[in-house]
Amino acid sequence: MLVVMEKGASEEAIMKVSEKLEERGFVVHLTRGVERTIVAGVGDPTRGTDSSIEAIDGVDRVIGIMTPYKLASREFQAEDTVIEIGDVTIGGKEIQIMAGPCAVESRGQALEIAHIVKNAGAKIMRGGAYKPRTSPYDFQGLGEDGLKILKEAGETYGLKIITEVMEPGAVEMVAHYSDILQIGSRSMQNFPLLKKVSEIDKPVLLKRGLSATIGEWIMAAEYILSGGNRKVMLCERGIRTFESFTRNTLDLSAVAAAKQLTHLPVIVDPSHATGKWRLVNPMALAGITAGADGLIIEVHPRPSEALCDGSQSLTEENFNKLLAKIKQVANAVDREI
Amino acid sequence: MLVVMEKGASEEAIMKVSEKLEERGFVVHLTRGVERTIVAGVGDPTRGTDSSIEAIDGVDRVIGIMTPYKLASREFQAEDTVIEIGDVTIGGKEIQIMAGPCAVESRGQALEIAHIVKNAGAKIMRGGAYKPRTSPYDFQGLGEDGLKILKEAGETYGLKIITEVMEPGAVEMVAHYSDILQIGSRSMQNFPLLKKVSEIDKPVLLKRGLSATIGEWIMAAEYILSGGNRKVMLCERGIRTFESFTRNTLDLSAVAAAKQLTHLPVIVDPSHATGKWRLVNPMALAGITAGADGLIIEVHPRPSEALCDGSQSLTEENFNKLLAKIKQVANAVDREI
Amino acid sequence: MLVVMEKGASEEAIMKVSEKLEERGFVVHLTRGVERTIVAGVGDPTRGTDSSIEAIDGVDRVIGIMTPYKLASREFQAEDTVIEIGDVTIGGKEIQIMAGPCAVESRGQALEIAHIVKNAGAKIMRGGAYKPRTSPYDFQGLGEDGLKILKEAGETYGLKIITEVMEPGAVEMVAHYSDILQIGSRSMQNFPLLKKVSEIDKPVLLKRGLSATIGEWIMAAEYILSGGNRKVMLCERGIRTFESFTRNTLDLSAVAAAKQLTHLPVIVDPSHATGKWRLVNPMALAGITAGADGLIIEVHPRPSEALCDGSQSLTEENFNKLLAKIKQVANAVDREI
Amino acid sequence: MLVVMEKGASEEAIMKVSEKLEERGFVVHLTRGVERTIVAGVGDPTRGTDSSIEAIDGVDRVIGIMTPYKLASREFQAEDTVIEIGDVTIGGKEIQIMAGPCAVESRGQALEIAHIVKNAGAKIMRGGAYKPRTSPYDFQGLGEDGLKILKEAGETYGLKIITEVMEPGAVEMVAHYSDILQIGSRSMQNFPLLKKVSEIDKPVLLKRGLSATIGEWIMAAEYILSGGNRKVMLCERGIRTFESFTRNTLDLSAVAAAKQLTHLPVIVDPSHATGKWRLVNPMALAGITAGADGLIIEVHPRPSEALCDGSQSLTEENFNKLLAKIKQVANAVDREI
Repeated sequence: MLVVMEKGASEEAIMKVSEKLEERGFVVHLTRGVERTIVAGVGDPTRGTDSSIEAIDGVDRVIGIMTPYKLASREFQAEDTVIEIGDVTIGGKEIQIMAGPCAVESRGQALEIAHIVKNAGAKIMRGGAYKPRTSPYDFQGLGEDGLKILKEAGETYGLKIITEVMEPGAVEMVAHYSDILQIGSRSMQNFPLLKKVSEIDKPVLLKRGLSATIGEWIMAAEYILSGGNRKVMLCERGIRTFESFTRNTLDLSAVAAAKQLTHLPVIVDPSHATGKWRLVNPMALAGITAGADGLIIEVHPRPSEALCDGSQSLTEENFNKLLAKIKQVANAVDREI
Repeated sequence: MLVVMEKGASEEAIMKVSEKLEERGFVVHLTRGVERTIVAGVGDPTRGTDSSIEAIDGVDRVIGIMTPYKLASREFQAEDTVIEIGDVTIGGKEIQIMAGPCAVESRGQALEIAHIVKNAGAKIMRGGAYKPRTSPYDFQGLGEDGLKILKEAGETYGLKIITEVMEPGAVEMVAHYSDILQIGSRSMQNFPLLKKVSEIDKPVLLKRGLSATIGEWIMAAEYILSGGNRKVMLCERGIRTFESFTRNTLDLSAVAAAKQLTHLPVIVDPSHATGKWRLVNPMALAGITAGADGLIIEVHPRPSEALCDGSQSLTEENFNKLLAKIKQVANAVDREI
Repeated sequence: MLVVMEKGASEEAIMKVSEKLEERGFVVHLTRGVERTIVAGVGDPTRGTDSSIEAIDGVDRVIGIMTPYKLASREFQAEDTVIEIGDVTIGGKEIQIMAGPCAVESRGQALEIAHIVKNAGAKIMRGGAYKPRTSPYDFQGLGEDGLKILKEAGETYGLKIITEVMEPGAVEMVAHYSDILQIGSRSMQNFPLLKKVSEIDKPVLLKRGLSATIGEWIMAAEYILSGGNRKVMLCERGIRTFESFTRNTLDLSAVAAAKQLTHLPVIVDPSHATGKWRLVNPMALAGITAGADGLIIEVHPRPSEALCDGSQSLTEENFNKLLAKIKQVANAVDREI
Repeated sequence: MLVVMEKGASEEAIMKVSEKLEERGFVVHLTRGVERTIVAGVGDPTRGTDSSIEAIDGVDRVIGIMTPYKLASREFQAEDTVIEIGDVTIGGKEIQIMAGPCAVESRGQALEIAHIVKNAGAKIMRGGAYKPRTSPYDFQGLGEDGLKILKEAGETYGLKIITEVMEPGAVEMVAHYSDILQIGSRSMQNFPLLKKVSEIDKPVLLKRGLSATIGEWIMAAEYILSGGNRKVMLCERGIRTFESFTRNTLDLSAVAAAKQLTHLPVIVDPSHATGKWRLVNPMALAGITAGADGLIIEVHPRPSEALCDGSQSLTEENFNKLLAKIKQVANAVDREI
């Protein structure tokens, strides 16, 4: 931690800052410039931040210089985390495609889509049973009935199931029916939920919050890792910016950055990011070349009848075309599918 | 709902859109331009949005034109909602000041601050017992012990208590110890939590999400209102932008807008918005002139020893100065304190 | 400048960084932590930034710690800059109101509005002759004819004139007809234009760029100051965020911050910031309490006939009401009008 | 244009809106809902927007529904624009790489880099002679001397030259020394400059503004196209968001969108977008798969000695590696290099 003092800060202020840092276990170094003094506190990165130092008279600014996460960092673990779910691996050479509807609407719909997903060669099915919706008047999902349908669809077609969990009290139930728990964008900093999923033995896909920095996203993963669950994958799904042509702005440099900063698998969601099916194809390919380990894509046999997110769903035909293209691009960057 | 068709969309496509809208209970009007046709679906605003229409071939764009909320709107209720908590009213002529520490740190600290708050003339004490923190290694709050301390402080000094609740499972417990439940910024779209607080009989302060639009913020309030709890107040606490000098960007036009669009009381939090105590004073005053019904402010007797958010906390002296100033400004805009 | 080395950076890398900093005239201090070394370069803040140091192997990050501007800072000049234009002062105790149409549309319109502005008690008239418009098909302003009309209006009613200049080649001409040159938001980093206005003897109102940080805004002012023109005032007119209900997001904390960081007068433009005349009133008042030295407001006798920005223009009646309100609020914060 | 009336708007207000639209040449259609009336004005998209209608009493909102650009649109020209500069084509099957230093620093440096660029197989050299810099104290470029050096480097190695022009008065001079004029991000809405380059016969690369929407970016291109210069290419170089790990946020969905909405070539600048050379490689590849027609990349033989942007410059070795990789990826998406 670097504490930049104000111009003309008193010796007393400098001493107070130094003592405070020492109290908290930091080793202190002073740099005295012509104009300003800098107090550096060196020590354990997991000691937490401390904005109270900024409240000392004479302090201009506090700058954190150490990576605030530990278990998620490449420095802690150099080799890639590879998550195994039965015979499916995430984070290895193979790129995984997770596909399915925004929401489970009925048993028939789910089985029909499972068939499409399986046929196309994907190994993981997505589908929401609990849907976070902006409006209380919109379809909220089928709940536990939806989970049962998903489980059946997965078993019928030999697909792993990923689905969202929205509250701590539902974690065990959702985990019972699924293979991967999804923490949605709006829940990225739902800390009680993060703590709860850190205690179970199921892979977790952690979507980046709508306006979360890369650092905050990794810190959210650190909550899960530090609680004991090491099977965490990150998912970039678009951030909120001023641009409104796309639903969100897919931040692919965050994918490349996350691959450099952490050892965790990174998945890209081009469907929610763009909100437009015509943009899903190029963004899916771009995600692969940016370094993603997988994609999560919305597929619906009849998008115009979907109960949610129809505008961003691929039809069977378009999904199949995309997978053929992904294969070519994956090979070009030494990955396979 | 307006459906803008693509240039040269077929008659068949236009019919399909029209039928779809009629199926869902909308009355349909067609506007045929030289270049494009627009299909307008007129009906009940709480019917929900429908992005699946965008998936019909030939559709360019769907534009929602009706206010997606109902109970929160000025059209539904013209007069201001005034929330009464014993002898304290929020949303009336009197401006309410909620003040206290970021986090309850100890019984002694809480009682000392309650004394400061009371002495300054404020009627509501704030304080966190459950703290949402970016890092798992930072202080997470005292939990239920903190709530007990708050309750004691409130009773000792005759102050109402507002404190944050972070998960559905804790709502009843937190409500037991406090007078107002705070839904934090990160929880604004924690829908299970919104549904839970909609079922109890306690006022709720709903903070605007870090990157929530004004519309989404009001829709979150609509969740609580439509669940049966009409004692909702909104709180603007800064949004996330590219600017990093301030912790967040206080959006005071959202305060003025919320007062025009809804009948709910609006509170401003200049402490979290700016992250700098030197900016709290001008932003608190600006909040009042923008139309706020109250302020929520961090106060700490020794900010440099605070366990969180010291840099944005006012000392007793600065808090007292601010209140004197607020009085003058409130009078200038026909409010009182 | 602080150079944070990577974990395990070599001695050679540390030496290279140190030498580089010394070459450029900095005094170097090393802080060796358990994990990382920090190289501090201490010296003249106007030496410029240096991203090339980040390209040295072993460097993690470069952090600028010194204020990158000098002439604009409170440290350079403690007392407020007060700009005098004849008998009108900007930056003193009196709050100045600049009012008028978005664009000069005709001699009749300009004279009619000048009359309204004068009658209401304002001393400065705004009006655009060269209009930056997003579309090439929109009204682009009357050009020099518009300037002549403005000059006449100003002389007829004893008003000072402020108008926008968009290119270096037009600075002298625009300065000939007006009392204050406005640099628009889109031109805040038009460096050839900044250099040109730095060479003339006319006050300049520098609007904050749509997405400029407070630091970049002040650096743009520094271009003008360092070129020799000390009559610079800043103008906050809203920044671009994800929020679309308002045209832009008025950042009033930037006003308070600019008053603390610099000695320059700060003006608020609530018209462009909100884009909605119903929000102009509360935001104008909030601007005053946030510390602004003046307001720039769009007024039009018949907004629905305005050739641009009608939706954000006040009628004469609303403008007069606002001024009465401003008077009360100004008094409450020890200012006058 | 759709004008959404307020609930309970009077017949008089509806008539006034209708008349206004008719006056301006629109054909008017009314849609009367239970709650609101919508007035649709149908006509020529290049008639411009009209915010003054929003100022009519009883109007809630005006929604533009027609594409505000014409010449740039796919509807106007279905086939891709291919720009020919001697034997180099931009916008065809071949992907073009533009490479070189941020700034021309000396004749020696420029010739050395030209050699690297040529050797690697690229055909266009970039390099700044006029540099827009945030600080007046930073290196501002060599000016016309820099242009002469660039011209010599281009002629010596058979490379086309692209360089930035910052003001209308310099357009002819810069055009004299170069093959492509670059309009920088800060100048995207420098309308006098856009008008000036629209009058000459040189290709123009138009960088997207830091916070420009896709629509505004295309409208800026429309300024150039409507002035008579049809050789326009767009360049995505990152937008400003809350994320600060990267210098900007590269918006690759804007690339895919621009390719769908317009017929213009689109170039990606991964260097400025990320600000970090380690991210240039993945983002360059992702740009290609997102649909870009070319890349503009910073290359410097000794980045740590560069006078600007060293941290984002590739060394010769890294540039050569990247080109090999680009070849593979280009082939995978049916492009070549």
